[in-house]
Amino acid sequence: MSYNLLKGKKGIIFGALNEQSIAWKVAEQAVEQGAAITLTNTPIAVRMGEVSELGKKLNCEIIPADATSVEDLQEVFRRSMEVLGGQVDFVLHSIGMSPNVRKKRTYDDLDYDMLDKTLDISAVSFHKMIQVAKKMNAIAEYGSIVALSYVAAQRTFFGYNDMADAKALLESIARSFGYIYGREKNVRVNTISQSPTPTTAGSGVKGMDKLMDFANRMSPLGNASADECASYCIVMFSDLTRKVTMQNLFHDGGFSSVGMSLRAMATYQKGLEEYMDTDGNIIYG
Amino acid sequence: MSYNLLKGKKGIIFGALNEQSIAWKVAEQAVEQGAAITLTNTPIAVRMGEVSELGKKLNCEIIPADATSVEDLQEVFRRSMEVLGGQVDFVLHSIGMSPNVRKKRTYDDLDYDMLDKTLDISAVSFHKMIQVAKKMNAIAEYGSIVALSYVAAQRTFFGYNDMADAKALLESIARSFGYIYGREKNVRVNTISQSPTPTTAGSGVKGMDKLMDFANRMSPLGNASADECASYCIVMFSDLTRKVTMQNLFHDGGFSSVGMSLRAMATYQKGLEEYMDTDGNIIYG
Amino acid sequence: MSYNLLKGKKGIIFGALNEQSIAWKVAEQAVEQGAAITLTNTPIAVRMGEVSELGKKLNCEIIPADATSVEDLQEVFRRSMEVLGGQVDFVLHSIGMSPNVRKKRTYDDLDYDMLDKTLDISAVSFHKMIQVAKKMNAIAEYGSIVALSYVAAQRTFFGYNDMADAKALLESIARSFGYIYGREKNVRVNTISQSPTPTTAGSGVKGMDKLMDFANRMSPLGNASADECASYCIVMFSDLTRKVTMQNLFHDGGFSSVGMSLRAMATYQKGLEEYMDTDGNIIYG
Amino acid sequence: MSYNLLKGKKGIIFGALNEQSIAWKVAEQAVEQGAAITLTNTPIAVRMGEVSELGKKLNCEIIPADATSVEDLQEVFRRSMEVLGGQVDFVLHSIGMSPNVRKKRTYDDLDYDMLDKTLDISAVSFHKMIQVAKKMNAIAEYGSIVALSYVAAQRTFFGYNDMADAKALLESIARSFGYIYGREKNVRVNTISQSPTPTTAGSGVKGMDKLMDFANRMSPLGNASADECASYCIVMFSDLTRKVTMQNLFHDGGFSSVGMSLRAMATYQKGLEEYMDTDGNIIYG
Repeated sequence: MSYNLLKGKKGIIFGALNEQSIAWKVAEQAVEQGAAITLTNTPIAVRMGEVSELGKKLNCEIIPADATSVEDLQEVFRRSMEVLGGQVDFVLHSIGMSPNVRKKRTYDDLDYDMLDKTLDISAVSFHKMIQVAKKMNAIAEYGSIVALSYVAAQRTFFGYNDMADAKALLESIARSFGYIYGREKNVRVNTISQSPTPTTAGSGVKGMDKLMDFANRMSPLGNASADECASYCIVMFSDLTRKVTMQNLFHDGGFSSVGMSLRAMATYQKGLEEYMDTDGNIIYG
Repeated sequence: MSYNLLKGKKGIIFGALNEQSIAWKVAEQAVEQGAAITLTNTPIAVRMGEVSELGKKLNCEIIPADATSVEDLQEVFRRSMEVLGGQVDFVLHSIGMSPNVRKKRTYDDLDYDMLDKTLDISAVSFHKMIQVAKKMNAIAEYGSIVALSYVAAQRTFFGYNDMADAKALLESIARSFGYIYGREKNVRVNTISQSPTPTTAGSGVKGMDKLMDFANRMSPLGNASADECASYCIVMFSDLTRKVTMQNLFHDGGFSSVGMSLRAMATYQKGLEEYMDTDGNIIYG
Repeated sequence: MSYNLLKGKKGIIFGALNEQSIAWKVAEQAVEQGAAITLTNTPIAVRMGEVSELGKKLNCEIIPADATSVEDLQEVFRRSMEVLGGQVDFVLHSIGMSPNVRKKRTYDDLDYDMLDKTLDISAVSFHKMIQVAKKMNAIAEYGSIVALSYVAAQRTFFGYNDMADAKALLESIARSFGYIYGREKNVRVNTISQSPTPTTAGSGVKGMDKLMDFANRMSPLGNASADECASYCIVMFSDLTRKVTMQNLFHDGGFSSVGMSLRAMATYQKGLEEYMDTDGNIIYG
Repeated sequence: MSYNLLKGKKGIIFGALNEQSIAWKVAEQAVEQGAAITLTNTPIAVRMGEVSELGKKLNCEIIPADATSVEDLQEVFRRSMEVLGGQVDFVLHSIGMSPNVRKKRTYDDLDYDMLDKTLDISAVSFHKMIQVAKKMNAIAEYGSIVALSYVAAQRTFFGYNDMADAKALLESIARSFGYIYGREKNVRVNTISQSPTPTTAGSGVKGMDKLMDFANRMSPLGNASADECASYCIVMFSDLTRKVTMQNLFHDGGFSSVGMSLRAMATYQKGLEEYMDTDGNIIYG
């Protein structure tokens, strides 16, 4: 539903890959709310084609760019300002990838070149993006920058591997740069810590489906969907949240504040029963 | 500016006292965004008159009630549903008062009857409000409840006294009830931790003006105003934040995530210089 | 094993009830580490007798007192200083009780007189204890005060009910008073957030055994025992932790920092299988 | 004072440079408490000579190693086990350096090769250290690993620059590896977040002396010294803290839990007075 919340605003969306992507939904909703945007993703992702369809549908330019390359990022901001006609008001960073996860290296057997890549792609790219934007004065006063994160930055989830460390780094960068960009240009920088979401990126994590079920039962409101996450991003881009900065905002149906729910415990309890003796006592193993 | 964000929604605003009140601004903005509301405050506050003007201006009913009284709260919800024509969609709790602060009892010389009152008025009233609403089934599915808090719940501010403990309790109640109300009715419960604000309530805290100056210089975006806080409340009442629950959301220009800023340090440094010897060394006292 | 860590120190232990109590273990270890102590619990608890055995065994005085009574607390400190020969160096607060939990009132059907009692017994008693001690100048410079808490202060656990709010209040009091007592007398105040422990108090919580199993599997080091908790208390009373204050210290085998563990997920997964179709897909209900 | 807390234990201390170093103090206290240790630092640091004196004084071997080199780390653990006669029980990581800080690159003008170095030296080295140790099975069951951190990982301090992000990454690594090493070998991994300390490393940060003064006045117990920090490390290496893992432990005189103290405000207020008009009103600029 359109409230024209972003009427007259201009933005850049990093990371839309396909219809499952949160960035894809953000792009759609941003346009629906009155914004003009550009899209960017890696050259390979762009060539794969689905992003082009989105670009056509939303009538917006797609700028291929490697988000770890300062030069490419400069081109993204330069071209976006050219196309959109001036400074942008919001930017979404929805980028994350771990070669260690892909290659099934466990956390106690990390390849350090791969770890460098994980950190560079998933976290340092956020710093590069902001530093480039600030040097080019590409973001308007009272602009808003959002990156997507995950609660693994605070608590360990088996299988999430070095992406947890990357997300912790990402959230720190949001704070550090939020301080500087805020005091100088009133630009706010936040991360949204989203429920596990069945995107292409998310599906690489081991046991993701079970984890999603667990998170869903733990969260009083259930897992937040990609569409709902997009709505929250819109809110953070709007003028109604101008004094929110340097925050990590949980958008997770309550998961982050739950220690144990009745629904999750019921499922857990079923699994536990196999470990009980005939008197109903738990057999601790 | 109206986006019709709350079009068709019904709400109750607790705690509007005068034009400085955050609740006052929330009432104004809620109506501007399309909501129908009722207002409530203590009988004394209502008699003092300014709330009545707001009621007239917004064309909404004022229901006098002591928020620590279960009976009064029942009447607030009963009458609101009657007037508004059904279940409400959002509720704001903007209530806080410490007799110990008023009577200038320091934190190591608290009067315990007064402490009970501080906790009852400033925190337990929130539980009572929600419990009454839930028992009366007075809040619609996907409704939103917000209470206003302060960062003193996490970190100690001299002079804030037992209100810090009340806010910690308030935030815990939001989590505890958010879990239950969420899983049963998809109602979300959150607190917004607002910058120090020059309201009637805030002005009771000792050294409030200096603290506000300090907070303002520490926050990269400066202190958030009452109006800006109201906008954030509107966002939390809207359908765009349906999966955010059990959270404490800082709305403070970044204050909560800053350890020391350059601007605050410059002022601090000036104060420090008086303690320096002629060689510029700090004389530690 | 004795390191004489508390050699020459004097302390007061609140809340030893029977051999399962953490406070009981703290008393034993404190004496083993060279301290002289007094014990205190409610008159009823003292009459029940087991505490007396501990008193005999450790050769220490037992002072019956209601920890919600300022007068009783004054007597505890007066008598302790008399018996121990001067100011005390450490105090343990291991007190918590919820009439709502006992009477099986759910969190959305709390009795408010009972909630007052929960807060008074489990949290405000801590403030009273410290305020009385400070007014009587009963704690020596560089003394240490510890209260026991639980992670429910941060995250909601179904069944833990209003004790969660009490623990949040307790932890806030530790911060608030830690600030004042620290700057004036270098006395530190901390809370230790302990694993669920099979004590008399803990066993009142619904589904405690399953929760303990879940916590045990989530924690990489398993749940911390009462004995291990006591050792951590000793450390916090010793001179080796003099600059730690206003903290909530998790002593939980890592539970608080785990989002999902492999072991817990394995059990959860077993419970989940019943919800799968023949192709192994989860049937979401 | 020796309690023989580490009697019979073996350990490795990374990062002792000179008498100001926290690692230096940890080495001294570890030996005083009955441990046998090895020391390691970069070849350059070792050649500079002061570490050698410490080695002589404590009668322990110094192993030159670059902590970012997996090969060097393997040699540190191999040689340490050889010299100490078996697996080690504790390891201290006190390593941090930012070329960007040294070269006075501001946070919005970072050199990315330098940022890589900051992260590699100050954070990833911790992962390498633990991964190497685990693969070599170099740490005994119930061993303890500690790294030193700073509150800038949570809140932004102007001037601390990319070290803030490195510390956030470091603390995340402690959690991630603490989970794995805990469940497999009962080895605990924690970080201690220490007051600003006048070490060689600390002195590189801009305005460090004023920040230390501010922190000192904000902390009810004042800043924690290097010696006191060493005592806390000893405690974390001892058998009395076996169930504490995946935690970031503030050792800061209370700083992290203070929003504003009276003492800091008094100094701040002095600086503020220059901005007041003749009626005592603050002139906001």
